[in-house]
Amino acid sequence: MIKQKKFILQENELPTQWYNIQADMVNKPMPPLNPATRKPLKAEDMYPIFCEECCRQEMDQEHAWIDIPDEVQERYRYYRSTPLVRAYALEKALDTPAHIYFKNESATPLGSHKINSAIPQCYYCKREGVTNVTTETGAGQWGTALSYAAKTFGLEAAVYQVKITLNQKPYRSILMRTFGAQVTGSPSMSTRAGKDIITRDPSHQGSLGTAISEAIELATTTPNCKYTLGSVLNHVTLHQTVIGLEAEKQMEMAGEYPDIVIGCFGGGSNFGGIAFPFMRHNILEGKTTEFIAAEPESCPKLTRGVFKYDFGDEAGYTPLLPMFTLGHEFRPANIHAGGLRYHGAGVIVSQLLKDNMMHGVDIPQLESFDAGMIFARTEGIVPAPESCHAIAAAIREAEKCKESGEEKVILFNLSGHGLIDMPSYSQYLNGDLINFKVSDEDITRFTKDIPEV
Amino acid sequence: MIKQKKFILQENELPTQWYNIQADMVNKPMPPLNPATRKPLKAEDMYPIFCEECCRQEMDQEHAWIDIPDEVQERYRYYRSTPLVRAYALEKALDTPAHIYFKNESATPLGSHKINSAIPQCYYCKREGVTNVTTETGAGQWGTALSYAAKTFGLEAAVYQVKITLNQKPYRSILMRTFGAQVTGSPSMSTRAGKDIITRDPSHQGSLGTAISEAIELATTTPNCKYTLGSVLNHVTLHQTVIGLEAEKQMEMAGEYPDIVIGCFGGGSNFGGIAFPFMRHNILEGKTTEFIAAEPESCPKLTRGVFKYDFGDEAGYTPLLPMFTLGHEFRPANIHAGGLRYHGAGVIVSQLLKDNMMHGVDIPQLESFDAGMIFARTEGIVPAPESCHAIAAAIREAEKCKESGEEKVILFNLSGHGLIDMPSYSQYLNGDLINFKVSDEDITRFTKDIPEV
Repeated sequence: MIKQKKFILQENELPTQWYNIQADMVNKPMPPLNPATRKPLKAEDMYPIFCEECCRQEMDQEHAWIDIPDEVQERYRYYRSTPLVRAYALEKALDTPAHIYFKNESATPLGSHKINSAIPQCYYCKREGVTNVTTETGAGQWGTALSYAAKTFGLEAAVYQVKITLNQKPYRSILMRTFGAQVTGSPSMSTRAGKDIITRDPSHQGSLGTAISEAIELATTTPNCKYTLGSVLNHVTLHQTVIGLEAEKQMEMAGEYPDIVIGCFGGGSNFGGIAFPFMRHNILEGKTTEFIAAEPESCPKLTRGVFKYDFGDEAGYTPLLPMFTLGHEFRPANIHAGGLRYHGAGVIVSQLLKDNMMHGVDIPQLESFDAGMIFARTEGIVPAPESCHAIAAAIREAEKCKESGEEKVILFNLSGHGLIDMPSYSQYLNGDLINFKVSDEDITRFTKDIPEV
Repeated sequence: MIKQKKFILQENELPTQWYNIQADMVNKPMPPLNPATRKPLKAEDMYPIFCEECCRQEMDQEHAWIDIPDEVQERYRYYRSTPLVRAYALEKALDTPAHIYFKNESATPLGSHKINSAIPQCYYCKREGVTNVTTETGAGQWGTALSYAAKTFGLEAAVYQVKITLNQKPYRSILMRTFGAQVTGSPSMSTRAGKDIITRDPSHQGSLGTAISEAIELATTTPNCKYTLGSVLNHVTLHQTVIGLEAEKQMEMAGEYPDIVIGCFGGGSNFGGIAFPFMRHNILEGKTTEFIAAEPESCPKLTRGVFKYDFGDEAGYTPLLPMFTLGHEFRPANIHAGGLRYHGAGVIVSQLLKDNMMHGVDIPQLESFDAGMIFARTEGIVPAPESCHAIAAAIREAEKCKESGEEKVILFNLSGHGLIDMPSYSQYLNGDLINFKVSDEDITRFTKDIPEV
């Protein structure tokens, strides 16, 4: 008798609504503030930057369920459901009694979960008459997804890619160009924000915060152009809840329910995407599932950041957001997990962390790649450096189970594959990777001047 | 009402047997010959090179169905079934009445169909006490699959990769090393065959034929080491029939049956894999499905080669095989579809071509990438340069349908994705790609001295 390995939903079983955890949260997230007046923003205050529907979703604290438009459902069916997989081979290698499952978001045509939000964002833009979209990208996963989604709905896309990853991962920009997008390394000389940064520091290798500034500047100075974001914001995480909603049904098919749910953590969208649908049962039914966000040791906003109102970008173009942050001028080390090199956590996750509904763990770079190698050699999938953090956290929990003998059910999100990140693996195989631990002094330096909430 | 896009089998619906078309063929393939004596070979004559079970499968002209071992079925379940997809977006872009389906073999963790044969070959080696496997790889898809499968069954793997693709696709060798394999560029100085070739031509960029010679030499001079092959041979194509057997059930789910089945063509394993289970119904039930093998214009053995007994490798280490060939010393142009740069066609396909059960088309390199671009921008999957040839052939047929108004059902095999081939797309986007048409003189030069069958 061969045991079932994967659990896959038929197309007619796919979610038709996203889950908006804001509606169920006991303590609602605090509102974003206008930096000049420090007054709370309304949805319409953000219309100049984002498409209107995304702004409304961003601020919606009433509706727990939001309909997924038919056109978006149609495109989701190009690749969803992604499989829920029982990691038998990994369990065997770890010799753990834990049952390890992963939701395989790497099994999308572009290799990560990012497409789940790129499709609705481009769809809403198109519906509202927008012709151009712009964005930033770190590792390149979001930029790739946006480029494809834009092409799908007949929009032009301009992507600012963090310079360090543009160089580390040259295949990414070719991929975006294959989908017809224009790609610019950030910081660039094409925006005021970029010029300012290059003038201050000509060797600046870029960061998500900087690239966001450039993209927002382009959006607000170009007619009929909207900015889109791949993580951090509430509406992005909302779209990503398809991951957890599918996983919930698939865990049922497997006859289990997770004791622990894990996602890697950059801005929070893949973590929230898998976690929130399960967290709902903690909130509403008193379940006791543990939620772990795995961040890099070199960018530890959840484990060592401060909870303050801070900018979402380096130049200070965004509203002030109530979040766990390392300071918007914090410059993360050049780790390979480019998608996790962001100074702040989304506001929903920040509130949930404050309320002890979840917790963070920080993973050193070498431990993350050790975990990725074990995973690749057992399950056959080379994980993205970002996803390696989730795997490392899952392995830590599985090893605890080995010690205690507990048969816990662990579910993690495999947010993407690493086939375009092979240079990172080459460095690892050659023994050239190192860890980057942030000093207490650096954290204090970048956070001390942010006003208290 | 959203139309169903993908058809996916549950794990308990997967094939439990491979289909051996040799048993059903009206004219059986002629036997391989010992080059010295020109006497037919028996299975046991090949035991020094391949594992025994593969040799038996190679020569089996009796059993139409061969059981898939449980251990292989278990590993197949890590990623099978792959989806059968209706290419609605491609159809719309082409404005064709044709119904286009593709079998998405790119949706395997390593990105191509090659794993389907790597798993059973490594499994049989392990069962027979082999400790080391060796092979050649062109584009790197086969080498990657073998490296992973070897790791899975605890074997050591040594891969000779064609030098031109080692340089064109540097990520591939990192990927193989990630799975623990040793990778050597071919021609190398580590074998007599490699040394001879480098001595004759120091700038030799390698070919599959050369790399095969090197790998066979290593296998036959190393204790407990067997050679494995990723295409051409009958047992490899046998393993690949899981593709077509799944597709048959999935087409049934879609309520259609293909008028045309298309695969790209290097040695024949992905083509035979999708085609043979359907061709069975042509042979046994008089169905009239058309089978098209899409080869590169620069390596046109099916459309312009000769049917003769020729060596499978450049150095002449293999048995003589009855096949359509351009001559074993033919050196294909350095096209990006490295997996199609092989001088000969497998013996089963060669016999079927001779018997008019199928036909070949040759695709210029630029047309293949044009097709790949349309596919990427509509269906969201960047195809491997090899698979682009199948897409191009499918587009030709869909355009004929547009002219004639026929609503034909076209099925092609998407043998792999191109995420590791982005430098090829970069050259295409930059306008640097060219076509390579083989001259009649070259074909005559390399084929005239091969003795007639």
